[in-house]
Amino acid sequence: MTTDVRTIEWTGDGLRLLDQTVLPGRVEYLTVRDVDALVDAIRRLAVRGAPALGVAGAFGVALAVRQAAREGWDDARRDAAIARVRTARPTAVNLAAGVDRVLPFAAKGADAVAVEAQAVLDEDVRGNRAIGVLGADWILGRTGGDRPLRVLTHCNAGALATAGWGTALGVVRELHGRGRVETVYADETRPLLQGSRLTAWELRQAGIPCVVQADAAAPSTILRGLVDVAVIGADRVAANGDTANKIGSLGVALACRAAGIPFVVAAPWSTVDLALPDGTGVPIEQRPAEEILAWNGAPTVPDGVEAFNPAFDVTPARLVTALVTETGVLEVSSGDTPGHVRSGA
Amino acid sequence: MTTDVRTIEWTGDGLRLLDQTVLPGRVEYLTVRDVDALVDAIRRLAVRGAPALGVAGAFGVALAVRQAAREGWDDARRDAAIARVRTARPTAVNLAAGVDRVLPFAAKGADAVAVEAQAVLDEDVRGNRAIGVLGADWILGRTGGDRPLRVLTHCNAGALATAGWGTALGVVRELHGRGRVETVYADETRPLLQGSRLTAWELRQAGIPCVVQADAAAPSTILRGLVDVAVIGADRVAANGDTANKIGSLGVALACRAAGIPFVVAAPWSTVDLALPDGTGVPIEQRPAEEILAWNGAPTVPDGVEAFNPAFDVTPARLVTALVTETGVLEVSSGDTPGHVRSGA
Repeated sequence: MTTDVRTIEWTGDGLRLLDQTVLPGRVEYLTVRDVDALVDAIRRLAVRGAPALGVAGAFGVALAVRQAAREGWDDARRDAAIARVRTARPTAVNLAAGVDRVLPFAAKGADAVAVEAQAVLDEDVRGNRAIGVLGADWILGRTGGDRPLRVLTHCNAGALATAGWGTALGVVRELHGRGRVETVYADETRPLLQGSRLTAWELRQAGIPCVVQADAAAPSTILRGLVDVAVIGADRVAANGDTANKIGSLGVALACRAAGIPFVVAAPWSTVDLALPDGTGVPIEQRPAEEILAWNGAPTVPDGVEAFNPAFDVTPARLVTALVTETGVLEVSSGDTPGHVRSGA
Repeated sequence: MTTDVRTIEWTGDGLRLLDQTVLPGRVEYLTVRDVDALVDAIRRLAVRGAPALGVAGAFGVALAVRQAAREGWDDARRDAAIARVRTARPTAVNLAAGVDRVLPFAAKGADAVAVEAQAVLDEDVRGNRAIGVLGADWILGRTGGDRPLRVLTHCNAGALATAGWGTALGVVRELHGRGRVETVYADETRPLLQGSRLTAWELRQAGIPCVVQADAAAPSTILRGLVDVAVIGADRVAANGDTANKIGSLGVALACRAAGIPFVVAAPWSTVDLALPDGTGVPIEQRPAEEILAWNGAPTVPDGVEAFNPAFDVTPARLVTALVTETGVLEVSSGDTPGHVRSGA
């Protein structure tokens, strides 16, 4: 069962990460004991997913504090190392938030930081369970009837993207637990195939029926009436409900709107960035062109042709039917936005 | 220059095909002298693209008539072989139409069939030139101004998909000839990467600037305002203007509508199937799951997980801003449909 797989774990003197670059072929762990190795693991997507990055950022501070003590760094050097972890990837707000949350404990030493980081991890798992229940309740209320549902998801917002259980896949797990999943369409999610490699692996482990499809098939699968609801994760949600998530999420949202089915975003409240009024301010990570231009080292594109490789897109709030966090469900496209809730309006 | 590359050519005793499965790494030709080899080449997509399939179908009849004479087949066996060519792939109407067009010449022998098939080929190239001019005129009239355009295309509707010049890429070539192309966004087109491998190769050969992107990036590229017009080909157009084309075309169309930019379909009139009132009757080819589940023989998906691999989708007429054929431009979403034109209403 996937719930036994630990995506990320503190060993006392380092961070043990399930290496997501080699799944599903191999289940291997990386043990990371210094900041350079952690930054590299984050950039290579050995650890990935907004909530998991929050946990990795929090433990990353513990790692930096421990390395500073071990190697006799001064505070400036330690702080620079922490800043490198904080900015290793730009789009998910959770990475920086994880770092910032535990930073006040740095003066008390690595163990104190690690205790707080463990709290971040534990809260993430508890939050995901709550997201699963709230999301399943909302979806079943919205879709009506009692037949099992056909669910579409994009990228991986599962146990592997979080400290455990998952956000979008947490909702799917909960629906499955209630006997209400017929099948899951998992978009393969080019260029790095998180859908094929990670979501399909998690669902298979959990015994949840799934089929993988090309990303480009999603709009047609939805418009042909083969899908009841789409559920995705998020890397950053602006105050107005605009949602940044893996490239391709926007296309799924457009198709859901055209088909009249709900497009549901499942994410912890920590993914909400109230400092951003809307999605135009989300920094969109450009990934290396090589991810598009070659496969396993073999070129797929003629020499001299460039690639455009944004890792995320922004779905406008008007297309987000519901945002499910551990604190409740916001019907964003109806005007129930995160900023609205927070301001108490 | 791509115009020197012959996608498909009759050699007098067989068909010489540019093997599109090994591009862009290698430029190799297949010489096909019997029906089995042609059916295999069509199924493997060594020759592909609706107009090119029309030409291959026409020459396929010449091939069958020649093989029947050589091997002493009776008429029933010859007709069965022709039927296998005619149905080697189901979605593009052009394949069957190419066969049917030359069939009346079968009784006169292979050479007579080949002469008529060559006429199909020559008409295709002339038609594509006309499509290019008409499409460029319409697009420039619609987009206004005099700055070069950012064009998005999906799959390959170029010289490689036709007897030469191309349909969607014929429009791009014509725009480029007028100095009006800034760049082309070529969707990579999973699972077989016709965009990365073929469109990028053709554009590079023609000296037209292009960038390749993941299919899932298209909606975001369009909604971010980076694209002025999308131009694609078609495999079958119903009387009401519903358009079947490579899987992913529908997602591009939805994004164009949301962004308020034109979605243009460029295809010869032979792609129009007036016998179909709308797109619901288009047979959608399901390709082998292996195209999704593995890459160069290496699995990308865990054992036991299935794939859903429809090769085409249907874009509803309401999203097709213009259909450009060699006979003129129909503004389909405004009600100017192929059936409407043909009925003289």
